[in-house]
Amino acid sequence: MIVFSMLTVNSDRLNNSINRLAKIGKQPSGSICRLAFTPEDLQARYLVQQWMIEAGMTVRTDAAGNLIGTYAGIVEGAPALATGSHIDTVPSGGRFDGVLGVLAGIEVVRTLRENNLRLNHPIEVIVFTDEESTMIGCQAIAGTVLLQSPDRYQSKVGSSIQTCLEMVGGNWDELATAKRSRSDIAAFVELHVEQGAVLERTGKEIGVVQGVVGMQRKAITITGVANHAGTTPMDMRQDALVAAAQVVLAVRDIARRMPSQPVATVGYLNVSPNAVNIVPGRVELSVDMRDLSKECLDAMLEQLRHEVQVIATDTDTEIAIAPLLCVEPTLAALHVQTAIESVCQQLGLSYCHLPSRAGHDSLEIGRITDMGMIFVPSQAGVSHSEAEYTSPQQCTQGANVLLHTLLDLDKIYPARDDCKE
Amino acid sequence: MIVFSMLTVNSDRLNNSINRLAKIGKQPSGSICRLAFTPEDLQARYLVQQWMIEAGMTVRTDAAGNLIGTYAGIVEGAPALATGSHIDTVPSGGRFDGVLGVLAGIEVVRTLRENNLRLNHPIEVIVFTDEESTMIGCQAIAGTVLLQSPDRYQSKVGSSIQTCLEMVGGNWDELATAKRSRSDIAAFVELHVEQGAVLERTGKEIGVVQGVVGMQRKAITITGVANHAGTTPMDMRQDALVAAAQVVLAVRDIARRMPSQPVATVGYLNVSPNAVNIVPGRVELSVDMRDLSKECLDAMLEQLRHEVQVIATDTDTEIAIAPLLCVEPTLAALHVQTAIESVCQQLGLSYCHLPSRAGHDSLEIGRITDMGMIFVPSQAGVSHSEAEYTSPQQCTQGANVLLHTLLDLDKIYPARDDCKE
Repeated sequence: MIVFSMLTVNSDRLNNSINRLAKIGKQPSGSICRLAFTPEDLQARYLVQQWMIEAGMTVRTDAAGNLIGTYAGIVEGAPALATGSHIDTVPSGGRFDGVLGVLAGIEVVRTLRENNLRLNHPIEVIVFTDEESTMIGCQAIAGTVLLQSPDRYQSKVGSSIQTCLEMVGGNWDELATAKRSRSDIAAFVELHVEQGAVLERTGKEIGVVQGVVGMQRKAITITGVANHAGTTPMDMRQDALVAAAQVVLAVRDIARRMPSQPVATVGYLNVSPNAVNIVPGRVELSVDMRDLSKECLDAMLEQLRHEVQVIATDTDTEIAIAPLLCVEPTLAALHVQTAIESVCQQLGLSYCHLPSRAGHDSLEIGRITDMGMIFVPSQAGVSHSEAEYTSPQQCTQGANVLLHTLLDLDKIYPARDDCKE
Repeated sequence: MIVFSMLTVNSDRLNNSINRLAKIGKQPSGSICRLAFTPEDLQARYLVQQWMIEAGMTVRTDAAGNLIGTYAGIVEGAPALATGSHIDTVPSGGRFDGVLGVLAGIEVVRTLRENNLRLNHPIEVIVFTDEESTMIGCQAIAGTVLLQSPDRYQSKVGSSIQTCLEMVGGNWDELATAKRSRSDIAAFVELHVEQGAVLERTGKEIGVVQGVVGMQRKAITITGVANHAGTTPMDMRQDALVAAAQVVLAVRDIARRMPSQPVATVGYLNVSPNAVNIVPGRVELSVDMRDLSKECLDAMLEQLRHEVQVIATDTDTEIAIAPLLCVEPTLAALHVQTAIESVCQQLGLSYCHLPSRAGHDSLEIGRITDMGMIFVPSQAGVSHSEAEYTSPQQCTQGANVLLHTLLDLDKIYPARDDCKE
């Protein structure tokens, strides 16, 4: 019998797969353009599907176009331990975002198979559809798609979502059939590059993700009075940009004051009439706030509302706040975090706990079953760029942590109904 | 002999002239579009020239296209007492800006003539060319035109300045001949609507202008690092918009701190990449500072430079300041201010002293000779709009102050060389 703790993935095979997939959609600049529902997406799906089959998996595509490879388990009818991520990119994407999670999942299965190993649970490797835009793949599995409103799902390629899904073997009208539950996915673990610089800055090899942050996104409109920049005395102004400047600083200070280290950003700001010699009459700006805790997000929003009132009074302007987007945070299951942590200790890898402040397929899957994420470092925190880089060794370390986490979870989660806790 | 203090302009005649001129370039919205060098400008010049001739003036056009009407004086060779303003408008202008100063000047001459009065000095009524854009008319008289750089004078109609001047009877190649000096213009007095709300707010009928403010205009570029709004912790950001917000507030506070009540405005601000989910990497903004005192402007600029350095350090950004425009202030001559003030007292009109914070032809003429300005109220401080309004009574009050100020100055300024002080 194989000693599980000796098991490691094949580093060369994993990194060769990453390099091979990076050729599909590669641009002259070195970045990768592999938008969902394009011929490049199809080409990549076809290749990944071949690799799944070669690794001994059975493959299927659900109504959302999710490509699901299953490596059978020992116990019949046991719920799956699932992993995976996405292979679509942003218009100027990198080689690792999403891809690492999918190919490490396949590499885990290859490793088990070449050692003639099966777990009690089946292992599923899922390639989620269109993570970078509509997130329709993971949302369909989580059952959070707005089935009555196909027009809300605007893919980057311009076609209707119905047409898009058809291209990748899905079917909008049957989308509800893609929904899964805890009874057939016992847990989901996603390996991903950090897309931030916390691991690099702290010198840690592995990030044990505490959860995927939720988001409150607001549109703020400030209405003052446009006026002559020469003839309007300072004390008679209703300057919308002076009010906006105070909002920008208030947003930063609200985030800085919270102990959980949330982030808050004014990324968009538009001034009218935007002329050198006119006191600004109107400013529109966005506020984006993210944290793991819904309570923290609610408290930040409450503080924002309060500060905005004070600023409006102080500057003699009117300030309106409208909703743009509200995403509930998803916490990682504590025993999945504990499993990842103990695997790091077994493998002698340094680690730290951190939230994921970018959205991931896990955000949705965590709504229906136990979820965990493993992060590996991103050089200089850069992603969505040709400069995105995680070394072969770091990719391999992440895949080994994924492998052993799945092995641990196989022991933790009951494979038969009758022995469920 | 007429008792000078009884003399008043003909209110109906003045206001009829204003209403007649307002028909030229009138838009469906009610605003007036009479850009310099357009057929509307020519039509207005032709009408005003007829009125000058009917008022007993001789007329000429100088090389800058300035239309100059002269009402002869008693003493041969005496320098002129000049008045006037402009009749061109911004694209959506009002009926009073500029026009009042020209037509009140003509009305003063009409009043003198119907009373068979001549002053020791000739009176000149000047219609300056293109005040609203290039200011080439008043600059040519002041000798401040950049004769080597015709391309710097970009009129709103698109043609070259040479072509534009030719249209209104001027000649770029002879522009130097338009220059005047103290020896042929003893003093210049301009009546103008305030284009601000100080008179209305303080309930005064006449503004005794202390001078036309100078201007320091700068372009500020802030360079931070564009980054993911989710994955970049607050303490690792180099947020150009957070820096810009501090600059906007610093600009306001610098103006508020100065005792002379200058104004300072950030009217233009542009964010890159300006996306909801990206920490801003770059902001460009304008700073416009105005005051009567060059020392105050210099001090404000010095403070701005200092604060910008502090902000750059605090936000880990780079901030560059580049010059956009620098205009030296022009003070009104003290004895012209005194003359206007004493006329207000004689006529029983309430008044206050205030700076002109908008640019005027006086700004340039004040560089070569004694200058003064008379303001009448603008309803709600509005100008450059169809809502620009000054009542017939207020226009008449302004014209009467102009009339009596010229009568006073005729006594103050020597008409003969041999009795010059």
